[in-house]
Amino acid sequence: MQLLYEGKAKKIFLTDDPDILHVQYKDHATAFNGEKFAVLPGKGRLNNLISSKIFEVLSEKNVTNHFVKSLSETEQLVKAVDIIPIEVVVRNVTAGSLAKRLGLEEGETLKSPIIEFYYKNDELGDPLINDDHIAMMELATSRQLNAIRLAAQEVNTILTRVFDDIGIMLVDFKLEFGTLKSNGELVLADEVSPDTCRLWDKETREKFDKDVFRRDLGDLPEVYEKLLRRLEGVK
Amino acid sequence: MQLLYEGKAKKIFLTDDPDILHVQYKDHATAFNGEKFAVLPGKGRLNNLISSKIFEVLSEKNVTNHFVKSLSETEQLVKAVDIIPIEVVVRNVTAGSLAKRLGLEEGETLKSPIIEFYYKNDELGDPLINDDHIAMMELATSRQLNAIRLAAQEVNTILTRVFDDIGIMLVDFKLEFGTLKSNGELVLADEVSPDTCRLWDKETREKFDKDVFRRDLGDLPEVYEKLLRRLEGVK
Ligand SMILES: Nc1ncnc2c1ncn2[C@@H]1O[C@H](COP(=O)(O)OP(=O)(O)O)[C@@H](O)[C@H]1O
Ligand SMILES: Nc1ncnc2c1ncn2[C@@H]1O[C@H](COP(=O)(O)OP(=O)(O)O)[C@@H](O)[C@H]1O
Ligand SMILES: [Mg+2]
Ligand SMILES: [Mg+2]
Repeated sequence: MQLLYEGKAKKIFLTDDPDILHVQYKDHATAFNGEKFAVLPGKGRLNNLISSKIFEVLSEKNVTNHFVKSLSETEQLVKAVDIIPIEVVVRNVTAGSLAKRLGLEEGETLKSPIIEFYYKNDELGDPLINDDHIAMMELATSRQLNAIRLAAQEVNTILTRVFDDIGIMLVDFKLEFGTLKSNGELVLADEVSPDTCRLWDKETREKFDKDVFRRDLGDLPEVYEKLLRRLEGVK
Repeated sequence: MQLLYEGKAKKIFLTDDPDILHVQYKDHATAFNGEKFAVLPGKGRLNNLISSKIFEVLSEKNVTNHFVKSLSETEQLVKAVDIIPIEVVVRNVTAGSLAKRLGLEEGETLKSPIIEFYYKNDELGDPLINDDHIAMMELATSRQLNAIRLAAQEVNTILTRVFDDIGIMLVDFKLEFGTLKSNGELVLADEVSPDTCRLWDKETREKFDKDVFRRDLGDLPEVYEKLLRRLEGVK
């Protein structure tokens, strides 16, 4: 298989079909824009299984997305997209960079969700941007941006419910969108996993996400495995 | 006179009229969130005269604002407002933090102006924020934010013309708005001066603004004096 792109968490391979890509999840964990780094055996499998499960749930709820099917414990097929280089962050509870940048306590539930756009650019450290910056750099059209906002809200509504049902608070998460190579349609792409979400136990506030690695709070694969178990109960 | 507040560039005193404040411009120059600091004799006078002139122009163009009248070379009377803690930045040309954060060349003219909001909070380093952050922190209502956007665009249109007429490019500038103590009306407040604008000679690209101090490009009062001379010709 021809490697198209290797990122921090996944390898993307070409397939015989130009509209389909083969994704392989890696065991690598990175944080703080690559400053912190580790190989955590089992992480690739867990993120692949969890992200596949979440995309299946989203597909059932008619959120158009890139997911085709799981191939193995660490691999999946997705529709090829041109990634829109915007990291779309949705927040329900104060945490992480939001709390730090704005001088807020962590763990405060927001009256309504906050959406943030970051320019997906590792060299620049993924800076926060606004609609005017997006227009200026032509990262997305204003139609696309509207659609992205609506889709992000929809995903938030669906996933908040899904996690709530298994005793977990969806604190925040990051989405990436792209346009299908085949027909230009805007779809949700990339992954939705504990690497890209903050997930707290509703009762104990135990973390089920990459903060376990960022903040040295425990054994990450163990924690992701627990999350997978809970998610297996869903639907 | 009772000092109400001393900021980095101005002292604000109470007057007999609770709706009116007395502003005294200081000779202090600060940059990089207070890391760089100097006293530059004459700077207070120049900013007071330049800002007064600009507010007079804006008043004539019916931009509602806090300016009442000049009192002396370094003092003016303004209407008392509750400052909305948002620094509103309008940009016509790439420069400064915009260029740095987004990896752009300085000096590129933008297809359309960019408006940015920063949370006015020295301790946090005035972080960039978006409409959702403003709503969450209740810094302004969405009505106020719309009015602020429109007013900022209007000020940009007027001042771009004013400076263009005297051979100067209005690269970017920062505005502050507030609500009048007397009746709650939203008005433009604070100052509009070479401390809060980037101003470049259209031909030579010589800087007539605080970057002369930030980047050690010359004698700041001398440069501001030249700007004042050019502005004296206006209307
Ligand atoms: N359906 C898709 N088509 C094309 N590229 C995709 C798709 N889904 C995700 N990608 C991209 O694959 C790359 C690899 O993923 P990842 O390892 O997470 O990279 P990164 O280091 O950028 O986070 C990312 O640039 C991601 O945006
Ligand atoms: N009309 C006004 N009424 C009340 N406060 C004002 C008015 N205009 C400006 N201010 C505030 O006066 C303070 C002093 O100005 P300045 O020295 O520039 O302070 P800073 O250090 O915050 O930049 C600032 O907080 C500014 O927002
Ligand atoms: Mg990624
Ligand atoms: Mg000031």
